Amino acid sequence: MLKLNQDNQACLYKYKLTIEYNGIPFCGWQRQESSISVQEVVEHALLKLCKEGDGFPRLHCSGRTDSSVHALAQVAHVSLSRNISGDKLKQALNYHINNKHIVIKNCVNLGENSDFEARFSCLERGYCYWIYQSDTSSAIFDEKCTHVSYNLDVNAMQEAANCLIGKHDFSSFRSSQCQANSPLRSIDEIIFNTEFDNHIFMWIRAKSFLHHQVRNIVGSLLLVGRGKIDVEKFKEILAAKDRNAAGPTAPAHGLYFAYARYEGEDVPAYFGKTIWHHEVN
Amino acid sequence: MLKLNQDNQACLYKYKLTIEYNGIPFCGWQRQESSISVQEVVEHALLKLCKEGDGFPRLHCSGRTDSSVHALAQVAHVSLSRNISGDKLKQALNYHINNKHIVIKNCVNLGENSDFEARFSCLERGYCYWIYQSDTSSAIFDEKCTHVSYNLDVNAMQEAANCLIGKHDFSSFRSSQCQANSPLRSIDEIIFNTEFDNHIFMWIRAKSFLHHQVRNIVGSLLLVGRGKIDVEKFKEILAAKDRNAAGPTAPAHGLYFAYARYEGEDVPAYFGKTIWHHEVN
Repeated sequence: MLKLNQDNQACLYKYKLTIEYNGIPFCGWQRQESSISVQEVVEHALLKLCKEGDGFPRLHCSGRTDSSVHALAQVAHVSLSRNISGDKLKQALNYHINNKHIVIKNCVNLGENSDFEARFSCLERGYCYWIYQSDTSSAIFDEKCTHVSYNLDVNAMQEAANCLIGKHDFSSFRSSQCQANSPLRSIDEIIFNTEFDNHIFMWIRAKSFLHHQVRNIVGSLLLVGRGKIDVEKFKEILAAKDRNAAGPTAPAHGLYFAYARYEGEDVPAYFGKTIWHHEVN
Repeated sequence: MLKLNQDNQACLYKYKLTIEYNGIPFCGWQRQESSISVQEVVEHALLKLCKEGDGFPRLHCSGRTDSSVHALAQVAHVSLSRNISGDKLKQALNYHINNKHIVIKNCVNLGENSDFEARFSCLERGYCYWIYQSDTSSAIFDEKCTHVSYNLDVNAMQEAANCLIGKHDFSSFRSSQCQANSPLRSIDEIIFNTEFDNHIFMWIRAKSFLHHQVRNIVGSLLLVGRGKIDVEKFKEILAAKDRNAAGPTAPAHGLYFAYARYEGEDVPAYFGKTIWHHEVN
């Protein structure tokens, strides 16, 4: 493990990175002592592009993801003393990352005086949850989606999800590990896409999320979808403000960090569609 | 490795299996001495359902696939002394297969007197080739598709592919290892699907194929798509009847055995679409 140097005096040019990753092989976004994180792999590659005397290239992301959670388009920023084009940095980074599970899809050189912060400048995050509905699992899509062997009433799930739109106390859908000061969050939109028979995509967007909020919401919506609870009961779960009142946490490997939106940017066109609608060029 | 027993006297009930698999971990469909095949894993599971004195449950497939080639819906038959419902056999097999890379998606008990043969009764096979077109690879889809970093002119590829329809001598697109008696084959249809920006699917159907025929065709069509050769040159490659005249063999991991069609069955609705249009219920 590299010793971190907080001295960023030599780091002047800020870069915005868009990163796609398969979450399965990693302990999550954030560095941990004993296992490999996405952050560590990308920072190692950045280090190879630093000169002697540069500070350690610390990467800051828009929203941390847990182990096995994927990203279509995680956003992160880093400051470097080098002034090169975003495209060149992207190529060099992908070369040094040398890990098929992490790909830098886009990189922009924001210049010397940018006040862009991947986390604090972010106006809205979007997540996607991929459910594969079939009596048997998928050999092809495997840990890229969550398999359910029962039939889902997606209309009921959408109806229940609509109760979550706007500002609410999300204590019922908040991990006991959550470090946020407040359980209040504002959800902007939840859309289910069912255009492919066996594949259901739930999209959700909000300024920010509590820890495990999306997976906990999906866990209870799956109970609605299979008829274990009705929409009224789902409303009661939200109103209870008690994690014990809600369903289980849905598996991590069905979840995708789908986008982070900044000033001047729109909700991406693939929001509400499928993950393969996600355009990268 | 199990000793094979050719005595099938106790095997009376014939079953038709539809199998989805991820080709990456296997040496291909067919049993080999030193590595694990799809056939071996499924036969091992079948063996657990056999009684003492039953012959070894030999599985016969519609079309063998090479290492790393996937299947959406491989078809195979087996004869067993047990007379159980297709659904029960499917459940039992998936339990005993215990390998996330192979899933029995469908199973039909054809009864005692069926003359169904997965290979010899097959009227037509369909394959799909998935190309991911982007300047960087896909961390999410990885070895489920073939990445190309250049832009493809898919209209030119379709135009070139159209020259292959009908009966031709496919020596230029035939592996030197091919054991077929004749290089003549009749291709019924080739369709490119481009409804998703970065994902291109080439579908091809024919009564039967030569060894590596689809991958060799794709290899030369990619040369057309990137402008290395034109459609006229592609026609000359076919006319040359010489493997050395053609382009390279496209990677195995982009290829899917998509379906096998039998009497009374239509070309499946997902032919010409995408692999996620493939319905399983």
